[in-house]
Amino acid sequence: MIKVGIVGASGYTGGELMRILFGHPSASIVYVGSRSLAGQRVRDVLPAVPPWCDLEFEEPDPDRMAERCDVIFTATPRGAAVPYAEAAVRAGKVLIDIGTDFRFRDVAVYEAWYGLRHAAPELSRRAVYGLPELFRERIRESRIVGNPGCYPTSVLLGLAPLVKNERIHLDKISIISYSGISGAGATPKPTSHLPEAAENLQPYGVAGHRHTPEIEQGLQLLRGEPPESEPVPISFTPHLAPMSRGILSTMALYPAGEETQEQLQALYEDFYRGEPFVRILGADRLPQTKPLRGTNFCDIAVRWDARARRIIVMSAIDNLGKGAAGQAVQNMNILFNLPETTGLELAGLYP
Amino acid sequence: MIKVGIVGASGYTGGELMRILFGHPSASIVYVGSRSLAGQRVRDVLPAVPPWCDLEFEEPDPDRMAERCDVIFTATPRGAAVPYAEAAVRAGKVLIDIGTDFRFRDVAVYEAWYGLRHAAPELSRRAVYGLPELFRERIRESRIVGNPGCYPTSVLLGLAPLVKNERIHLDKISIISYSGISGAGATPKPTSHLPEAAENLQPYGVAGHRHTPEIEQGLQLLRGEPPESEPVPISFTPHLAPMSRGILSTMALYPAGEETQEQLQALYEDFYRGEPFVRILGADRLPQTKPLRGTNFCDIAVRWDARARRIIVMSAIDNLGKGAAGQAVQNMNILFNLPETTGLELAGLYP
Amino acid sequence: MIKVGIVGASGYTGGELMRILFGHPSASIVYVGSRSLAGQRVRDVLPAVPPWCDLEFEEPDPDRMAERCDVIFTATPRGAAVPYAEAAVRAGKVLIDIGTDFRFRDVAVYEAWYGLRHAAPELSRRAVYGLPELFRERIRESRIVGNPGCYPTSVLLGLAPLVKNERIHLDKISIISYSGISGAGATPKPTSHLPEAAENLQPYGVAGHRHTPEIEQGLQLLRGEPPESEPVPISFTPHLAPMSRGILSTMALYPAGEETQEQLQALYEDFYRGEPFVRILGADRLPQTKPLRGTNFCDIAVRWDARARRIIVMSAIDNLGKGAAGQAVQNMNILFNLPETTGLELAGLYP
Amino acid sequence: MIKVGIVGASGYTGGELMRILFGHPSASIVYVGSRSLAGQRVRDVLPAVPPWCDLEFEEPDPDRMAERCDVIFTATPRGAAVPYAEAAVRAGKVLIDIGTDFRFRDVAVYEAWYGLRHAAPELSRRAVYGLPELFRERIRESRIVGNPGCYPTSVLLGLAPLVKNERIHLDKISIISYSGISGAGATPKPTSHLPEAAENLQPYGVAGHRHTPEIEQGLQLLRGEPPESEPVPISFTPHLAPMSRGILSTMALYPAGEETQEQLQALYEDFYRGEPFVRILGADRLPQTKPLRGTNFCDIAVRWDARARRIIVMSAIDNLGKGAAGQAVQNMNILFNLPETTGLELAGLYP
Repeated sequence: MIKVGIVGASGYTGGELMRILFGHPSASIVYVGSRSLAGQRVRDVLPAVPPWCDLEFEEPDPDRMAERCDVIFTATPRGAAVPYAEAAVRAGKVLIDIGTDFRFRDVAVYEAWYGLRHAAPELSRRAVYGLPELFRERIRESRIVGNPGCYPTSVLLGLAPLVKNERIHLDKISIISYSGISGAGATPKPTSHLPEAAENLQPYGVAGHRHTPEIEQGLQLLRGEPPESEPVPISFTPHLAPMSRGILSTMALYPAGEETQEQLQALYEDFYRGEPFVRILGADRLPQTKPLRGTNFCDIAVRWDARARRIIVMSAIDNLGKGAAGQAVQNMNILFNLPETTGLELAGLYP
Repeated sequence: MIKVGIVGASGYTGGELMRILFGHPSASIVYVGSRSLAGQRVRDVLPAVPPWCDLEFEEPDPDRMAERCDVIFTATPRGAAVPYAEAAVRAGKVLIDIGTDFRFRDVAVYEAWYGLRHAAPELSRRAVYGLPELFRERIRESRIVGNPGCYPTSVLLGLAPLVKNERIHLDKISIISYSGISGAGATPKPTSHLPEAAENLQPYGVAGHRHTPEIEQGLQLLRGEPPESEPVPISFTPHLAPMSRGILSTMALYPAGEETQEQLQALYEDFYRGEPFVRILGADRLPQTKPLRGTNFCDIAVRWDARARRIIVMSAIDNLGKGAAGQAVQNMNILFNLPETTGLELAGLYP
Repeated sequence: MIKVGIVGASGYTGGELMRILFGHPSASIVYVGSRSLAGQRVRDVLPAVPPWCDLEFEEPDPDRMAERCDVIFTATPRGAAVPYAEAAVRAGKVLIDIGTDFRFRDVAVYEAWYGLRHAAPELSRRAVYGLPELFRERIRESRIVGNPGCYPTSVLLGLAPLVKNERIHLDKISIISYSGISGAGATPKPTSHLPEAAENLQPYGVAGHRHTPEIEQGLQLLRGEPPESEPVPISFTPHLAPMSRGILSTMALYPAGEETQEQLQALYEDFYRGEPFVRILGADRLPQTKPLRGTNFCDIAVRWDARARRIIVMSAIDNLGKGAAGQAVQNMNILFNLPETTGLELAGLYP
Repeated sequence: MIKVGIVGASGYTGGELMRILFGHPSASIVYVGSRSLAGQRVRDVLPAVPPWCDLEFEEPDPDRMAERCDVIFTATPRGAAVPYAEAAVRAGKVLIDIGTDFRFRDVAVYEAWYGLRHAAPELSRRAVYGLPELFRERIRESRIVGNPGCYPTSVLLGLAPLVKNERIHLDKISIISYSGISGAGATPKPTSHLPEAAENLQPYGVAGHRHTPEIEQGLQLLRGEPPESEPVPISFTPHLAPMSRGILSTMALYPAGEETQEQLQALYEDFYRGEPFVRILGADRLPQTKPLRGTNFCDIAVRWDARARRIIVMSAIDNLGKGAAGQAVQNMNILFNLPETTGLELAGLYP
């Protein structure tokens, strides 16, 4: 049984992680860290936790946690995962950061976009970007996994077959994404206040969202470009949609050569053949976010717009599932040599 | 392994039943019946079904089904469950009807409210009303279970401690319930059309909803009254709320004698002590529907309104969970002598 | 042209008041008070305000306001309306308080339920409870109007025909209300955070909501009981529904004598005959909140439940319309001897 | 007083048109045509219509209508507006078609995309594309106006300053739009069934939506290209968002030369200077759909993404307002030489 510790369990990602791990046959949560909630029972705080859960929130102490756990998941604000990573490494354990501290191989990019000095740059360089379908082998050998952001997960899985096979112009990637509001976290704000957010569509972070450099780095990794290389800038425009969960990314891309629908369909099906969590939809279906709620799936459709000579890619995930907690468990499964679908064989909640 | 057959699997209740059974360690779906979808793969039709599900919809033949299955779940329109019940009985198997055909011990009530002749009145009389927390022992011995309606489940669990202990005036029970729109089924209608239903509250079925006699019969059963006795009429007013899932029933009740909050709280906690799926909330929480999505829980709070001398009971469930498919699986667990929580140890999807 | 001043214009009620007054042919906003926003243009702050609005927020000074305005609307937190009422009276102007400071003729009730000392009890006693359909004549002669709360408006209009005509047992009034979340104001809170509030039904304030004594006082006024009389306590249970606007109150009431549907229908139609804003729905319709958005209507249906011998009353309003700003403008029209529908001849926004 | 006739008044666009015209000081509805509802009172059918509206639905007879009305609005399915246009022309009246029959100057495009033969091609050629901000002068002289589609309105207003001034590569226009579900009409369908549509994002019509050629024609008109010229194909991907009203279009565009934020901001502000209904947002705000509900505004923001060298344009409207009924009234005002804002000086319903 893998002994699991979670820091930041009171947030949405931490809660989803617990929900998945409660049903995981080979993992058991042994440490739930939360400064503000220490001493309280988890089931008394989180209304969706079943009554037979006897876990209590504890003071989140990195070393104590590393001692008692085989793996630590950090779902924490920027900067806060570092002491847990250091403690995990010292104790020979592994860390999966669902926050943002270990996603960038180039610490300078992290520091520029997140506006703080990275406290452990050498650890960051040893961390691996945890998108299993694209970088599975490197994850298997790592001790620190930077779990990808929600938007980058949907975007990179949607772009990978085209980028890997040089089928599009890299300098003309524009991404329009919409997300449910849980992506903005559990803290009430005007943009998430239901009377403002319901029946509303709102762009935000235009030309400056922090997932931009993460997507660019993902493309570099896909193409095998060294860390010091200059990334090709992409354009990324996120929006809020009036719902709790789900991300849909839509991309109109410019082909490098001749294409047909059949070629593109085959390209995607071949690329993801055997992948349990990526579903390439056929001619009669398009991705929707609702059926993915609570799952680790990514649904992708590719369409050839012959009139406009553009490749349209649509990629949907649950931002808290494949976009956060589900993918983190998938990474844990890889690190512990379990079948990747262990504990993730979940059907979506529908409707 | 319990071999399970499902009729009406393409509806919301059937879909939720499959979602739960996919994770059930002692049951396996072997027959998925749907006339209109026969020959198609379940995962090609239902977008929330995982890709590793290889089930196919088949012609729903009662006898073939009874032969191949240990238990048949019917999630069918009124009247349609009867042939499956007959076949199950012939083959010595069991039937759990999530529809309305086997909820009434008095067939005349069924016929009056549902407007059709019951094709197998003697089977109906042998059926048991499947609300486990209240009628567990009778369920254990039955072969045909009439799974309760969604509203009656929330109402009867909320009322039972008071009714059993004669703490309220039976002739003054008034129930106001709100339900998510999935309760009205998967067929598009004006009242479920999002532009009409979103941002709307709508009463319906005032003074005539078919769950009224079911609640009245439940109260008779609770009080041990014989089938031929006249029920005490209750008032039940259902409403639609702009959401997919969830039921909240609120009842202002008239006490038979002196009450205090402490007494009422103790009454409810004692009544449901040891019940895994009924949670009596403490002073600091009130039932909400959202955390219950995907679960088999019923959350209840009782409050003594000393000024107005009324007992306020609020009871929340997932209409597709404890109100339908979850409760059906709980009944199956009882019938097959499994721990009642088997396959139902699910945390709610939140947010 | 009536010169209007508004205090608290940055909240939802203030915003709705401006929206209505922009289209009012005989009133003109001349003073928009907001401490925090003083100096900013209204259209730069409130995104729904048209670009041709040149109003600026000003420091809210009671005397300056009373000098420049014919009527002051206060949409302010408890206690804050008093200085404006005093200034209005000094200057011979009128005040309509959409807050809670002038709703109670018995200051002790206000002080007990709102937890603060009333700074101008004698003004409070001279104020009139501004529910025009029930107390029109008294409003006409007043200088200070306490605009009713949203829930009490829906409840009192729904109950009035029965209470005035002694058709129900007064000691058995139980009210279940659901409200859109704008009723809780513009400040983000966990209960209004979309990921918590969407797809959720939540009771709150059980057996202690501050609209309870307001409803009780309304019933006293209806029955002509003196201020010092003891009110009959009612039971009132409010809930939040996952939507922005709208209130639906449902009441199962106990008849004092024999009733029929025809009698009740006639009672309601007669009682409200000629009232422009109360619509008694016929046999084929039930109140819904959505079509009322942006209007000053109250839609009411009454049904006789012959089986359970109960009268079911359902009453719907827009909580920001008839439940706040619309009714405030209706009161202004009365005070200034305008036709009551002036500026309120608005169709609902639908869908 | 302009005498107005409406065909298709029972749909959402027809309903919104009535809502606006009820408040129009110079227009009066005299004929409301609906085959299925003939003989019924409008206020008995449409729940948002005020009780003082005494209009009745009548058999929609083109000639009778043309005789009694100064202007006919058709909100009808494809093909159905033609007889009204013919009758209007015969009688010397004007027709504004909010449907699709008079949007295309090249009838072959209409026939190819809409799949039916145009019954009056010469009338279609004389019709004018009714986007006032771009083609005001031609509208003024016309008798038949093809009111633009909802998506094209948001897109063309967003693109016009760049296209007119040749600031972008025309062959690289990709548009991602999201719409509320009222855009799909009042007929219930699976994609609009609340349990399927709530909490869901759904693309549709990928690479084949009928608004594609309308946008392309709009760009041709903007550039003064003759009807027989070949349009530059654009890529347009619409989506459904879980809400009733509103469209947001987002476009990442490729600059023809050097740009700065200041230049782009000035370009847009200059282009739309004096336009009452187009609001170019400043640096601190981005378009949102919610504040536009019930209005005729189009809110646009333009951003220079210096890293990716792309121009991001976001354009929001109410699909039933500026995207349909509001714009139709604006066109009527132009045709009848009224100030364009007459009857459209409406603040948005918020929240």
